[in-house]
Amino acid sequence: MELYGQRGYDRTTVAEIAERAGVTERTFFRHFADKREVLFGGSHRLQDLMVGALTKAPGAAAPIDAVGAALQASAAALNDREFSRQRQAIVTASEELRERELIKMATLTSAIAEALRRRGVKEPTASLTAEAGIAVFRVAFARWVDSANRKELGELMGESLDQLRVAISA
Amino acid sequence: MELYGQRGYDRTTVAEIAERAGVTERTFFRHFADKREVLFGGSHRLQDLMVGALTKAPGAAAPIDAVGAALQASAAALNDREFSRQRQAIVTASEELRERELIKMATLTSAIAEALRRRGVKEPTASLTAEAGIAVFRVAFARWVDSANRKELGELMGESLDQLRVAISA
Repeated sequence: MELYGQRGYDRTTVAEIAERAGVTERTFFRHFADKREVLFGGSHRLQDLMVGALTKAPGAAAPIDAVGAALQASAAALNDREFSRQRQAIVTASEELRERELIKMATLTSAIAEALRRRGVKEPTASLTAEAGIAVFRVAFARWVDSANRKELGELMGESLDQLRVAISA
Repeated sequence: MELYGQRGYDRTTVAEIAERAGVTERTFFRHFADKREVLFGGSHRLQDLMVGALTKAPGAAAPIDAVGAALQASAAALNDREFSRQRQAIVTASEELRERELIKMATLTSAIAEALRRRGVKEPTASLTAEAGIAVFRVAFARWVDSANRKELGELMGESLDQLRVAISA
């Protein structure tokens, strides 16, 4: 991770990462499918966790409150701000990784919309609520990794959702 | 466009497109930088048009209403539903094109957030409003190209924004 930050992701080879980590390439590949896996390996876990929290929300909860529960679950899991900050810097520096990040967020949005439909939420409300939730995630996450910001991610998620409500109220 | 639909984008060569269109490859490349350009050539124009409408909205307009003006401008420009339907089918069928579409939408979101900041809208409201606007665009567009839907795109944009408001209201 440190190495990606110093040299730029595109110029860092698996051999270099392995060397820096003090392991053989063979060991590296036992742990990561490829070098992107170091940065994106947590995506599936994050998605499962958010979908799980959404599914477990009380049946009477409004769709946006179920999504709020998913956002809080993600905030509890993303507890290493320094790692997230380094990761964000690396992703931002590489076009390939920015694209991968977009794909990850689109997949997450679809999974949340699908989980809402399983709760009986109709379209287009399911898709709109999922998109709003991911918009809040994105903006809160960007504020959190900003070094000037000292608030916790969960607080920023709640605050950003409130600000979205105010921003789009008629 | 027809050819992409029949054979799948990935298996259609420029030579085949040119032949189908009755032009030489040289002529094709005079018009399009590459074969993706046929599908994405309108992106910059759409973005300029939306940013232009947003910038021209009355200074007293709320950020979301300025974004609403941008959405209506896009709806007026995207007036060929059959073309959009074919294009959507082709993009959906190709992983490469889905990624390109995600990048296009992310670029559009950034451009709208930037135009809002130029109107004096502060962060994170500018980013949140831009994300909400693009969420509405995405959902309304998907409903519009759905063959079961007979409403106009502008109407669907307005309706989807109202539904987003209801969905996330506390």
